[in-house]
Amino acid sequence: MSKPSLVKGTRDFGPDKMVKRNFIFDTIKQTFQRFGFMPLETPTMENLSVLMGKYGDEGDQLLFKVLNSGNFSEKISQHDLDEGYKKLTSKISEKGLRYDLTVPFARYVTMNRGELTFPFKRYQIQPVWRADRPQKGRYREFYQCDADVVGTDSLICEAEIVLMIHEVFKNLGIDFTLKINNRKILTGLSEMIGQAGQEGTLAVAIDKLDKIGKEKVLEELTERGFSQESILKLDPVFEIAGSNAEKFEKLSVLLQDSETGKKGIEELQKVWSVFNAFDLSEEHVELDITLARGLSYYTGAIFEVKANGVQIGSITGGGRYDNLTGTFGMPGVSGVGISFGVDRIYDVLEELNLFPENQSVITKLLFCYFDEQAQEYALPLLGKARKAGINAEIYPETAKFKKQLDYADRKQIPFVCIIGSEEIETGQLTFKNMISGEQKKLSFEEILQELQAVL
Amino acid sequence: MSKPSLVKGTRDFGPDKMVKRNFIFDTIKQTFQRFGFMPLETPTMENLSVLMGKYGDEGDQLLFKVLNSGNFSEKISQHDLDEGYKKLTSKISEKGLRYDLTVPFARYVTMNRGELTFPFKRYQIQPVWRADRPQKGRYREFYQCDADVVGTDSLICEAEIVLMIHEVFKNLGIDFTLKINNRKILTGLSEMIGQAGQEGTLAVAIDKLDKIGKEKVLEELTERGFSQESILKLDPVFEIAGSNAEKFEKLSVLLQDSETGKKGIEELQKVWSVFNAFDLSEEHVELDITLARGLSYYTGAIFEVKANGVQIGSITGGGRYDNLTGTFGMPGVSGVGISFGVDRIYDVLEELNLFPENQSVITKLLFCYFDEQAQEYALPLLGKARKAGINAEIYPETAKFKKQLDYADRKQIPFVCIIGSEEIETGQLTFKNMISGEQKKLSFEEILQELQAVL
Repeated sequence: MSKPSLVKGTRDFGPDKMVKRNFIFDTIKQTFQRFGFMPLETPTMENLSVLMGKYGDEGDQLLFKVLNSGNFSEKISQHDLDEGYKKLTSKISEKGLRYDLTVPFARYVTMNRGELTFPFKRYQIQPVWRADRPQKGRYREFYQCDADVVGTDSLICEAEIVLMIHEVFKNLGIDFTLKINNRKILTGLSEMIGQAGQEGTLAVAIDKLDKIGKEKVLEELTERGFSQESILKLDPVFEIAGSNAEKFEKLSVLLQDSETGKKGIEELQKVWSVFNAFDLSEEHVELDITLARGLSYYTGAIFEVKANGVQIGSITGGGRYDNLTGTFGMPGVSGVGISFGVDRIYDVLEELNLFPENQSVITKLLFCYFDEQAQEYALPLLGKARKAGINAEIYPETAKFKKQLDYADRKQIPFVCIIGSEEIETGQLTFKNMISGEQKKLSFEEILQELQAVL
Repeated sequence: MSKPSLVKGTRDFGPDKMVKRNFIFDTIKQTFQRFGFMPLETPTMENLSVLMGKYGDEGDQLLFKVLNSGNFSEKISQHDLDEGYKKLTSKISEKGLRYDLTVPFARYVTMNRGELTFPFKRYQIQPVWRADRPQKGRYREFYQCDADVVGTDSLICEAEIVLMIHEVFKNLGIDFTLKINNRKILTGLSEMIGQAGQEGTLAVAIDKLDKIGKEKVLEELTERGFSQESILKLDPVFEIAGSNAEKFEKLSVLLQDSETGKKGIEELQKVWSVFNAFDLSEEHVELDITLARGLSYYTGAIFEVKANGVQIGSITGGGRYDNLTGTFGMPGVSGVGISFGVDRIYDVLEELNLFPENQSVITKLLFCYFDEQAQEYALPLLGKARKAGINAEIYPETAKFKKQLDYADRKQIPFVCIIGSEEIETGQLTFKNMISGEQKKLSFEEILQELQAVL
């Protein structure tokens, strides 16, 4: 008799949590659909040949690998053991668990390129797995929630991503700040200060500005070989402040000699012009030329969202990339995508107490009763309540009355219909509001009307 | 540059399939909720100590096992290799993929027994994995769709399962036959013919009646050691026919000397009385004393559903069990559950052409345009359409008109709003019905009204 336990870093989601998580998923899903994104699901297991080498050496180590079925060790010898576990893995395992949604998406696009309608807009909401060391807020199984448009480099798509972010967080009730940058601006900055090709180093350092301050950023750049002259030239970058329009203006002057930099500004300004066409207020949007986010991957716009009023890292991020499927032999597929971090959004909603109370999932009406006869009386009414579209239950056994009410309480059922001999005689049933405690006698038709008005 | 492929026995679900699958999932989910079932999700990976030994030897072999992270082979020697792959597995793998939803549910109930509200009604819709040989209709990854009530032996729950089945298939539009039996009746039959304790053998043979006919069933029983006398006694069982009421009557006479058999009839009759209380027509329900379904597990009612008018096996099944969590040290948890087979339900709907056409997921309106100016004109309208609750898109690039209409066609977008210089001048936009081909000039407000009336 073993005492069962969960795999480290994984979680059960019981009813309470599921109801809240589904509120997030449903909100995001509905917005994705409103914008014309269509659902995709890919398998949990992918061939290791698809996954390996896509996430760097560290990523390869963090892949969960599935043991081959059957007699996997038949052809394994002492020699194979001596060669170490990495080589051995390739001999006993061909499959791994999905590490993110992007690589499976790229595989899907490559394998189905002949049949897909481009521009192809898909969303995908599925769990991913990483053999990371579990710690607070970091799990080995967690959901990703992605939307991408591929097969077009239209800047309307960037703007639509921003609109979608607004829609999702408005519907979730979260106040947020959306930072935008463009990778070409970072390239322009490195050119401007005479460190062309060093935008990676520059970005990694400058990305920390918020956390470590200007002095430390410059120190880091010096350590990494940036000349004193280039660092001096960087100074005006830190002075860029004010409204987005003011930032654009100052940036245009700074980057006037960098073709790539000017292209980046131009792209962002086109995105901004689409905002205006959509009448989008700039209240939540901030041009931030220090935003970097996995720079090596993105080639155009970069997005990041943080919730206001809580100390929780970024809850959404994304950007434009130019080569989704190149690694699978299908070059030139440009796209722009966004990923919502469900676990962090959950934490934000929990911390700010923003989850709605009246969840549609939950049972609204429980029938309680005193004896078999009352149970029989209740059953047809239960059928009627459900036909009227009300989630309803009957306590399945004749049990102590307190036990039945406890059940309603613990399941957060807001209304109870109580049936005893008196109720059967008069047809006036006891209708109890479990939140206010209020209790009154009503006919069943009146109860249905009250419920339909309230719910 | 590798040519990517799917893991054998797994599938991508592109937008077309996802829309149809979600129709099934949403229908089932909504019904589960209407009946007071709450959602649960458990992790993909479980400890092998939780999974092993729960599905028989064959099941243990069919579990996908996950290689331990890090240097898993460090302590493996030639001696371990010599002992064979089964022993070796336990040294390099501690986790496996979920094989069904029942064992994880049992683990969850055991681990959370102190906090759960009993009777506990949960539903769970998640994929499971089996290292089976893939073949037509059999996959290595597939969804299960389960609902269970545990912690009560009330027969109302059996009746509610039957009501739920009716509700689900009514909403899916599938004509079906639901067969019901009770394990105690099978026990009674084996007692009646003087083969007490042999209900397993009896059930396996009798279960094949439909497929192989009476003669072959009796042959099989003879081969398995049933006496000629007992087989003669079985004869009247095959004569049981007619309405459910007639079957109950004949069965009562047959089983009058078996206490267990009579208990089984009594239980089923109680379930039937709840049908009556709910005013459920018996049209789809059939008492079938030859129904067995994994007898060793079920202890009371047994259910099975087939779709009428197609040659596809059972699409739903379930029953009453008495010992869900015993293997985890929590005895006496009785429950009744049902599992919907999504892949087969999909095939039924496809074969009978029953999928609804007007899916809510799909984009309803596409804006097409001839130039940049028309694009700018369209953007605010796109925003308005979405605000009005209409899933809408704009073709993201100025492209040939045919290409834009092709996009609408291939994405099955039913309406297109076409904007050119004339439309901008007059405010009368071209509104095209992509299905009928009909095309007319309307103001944008009129277009919104038409769409809201139609969708």
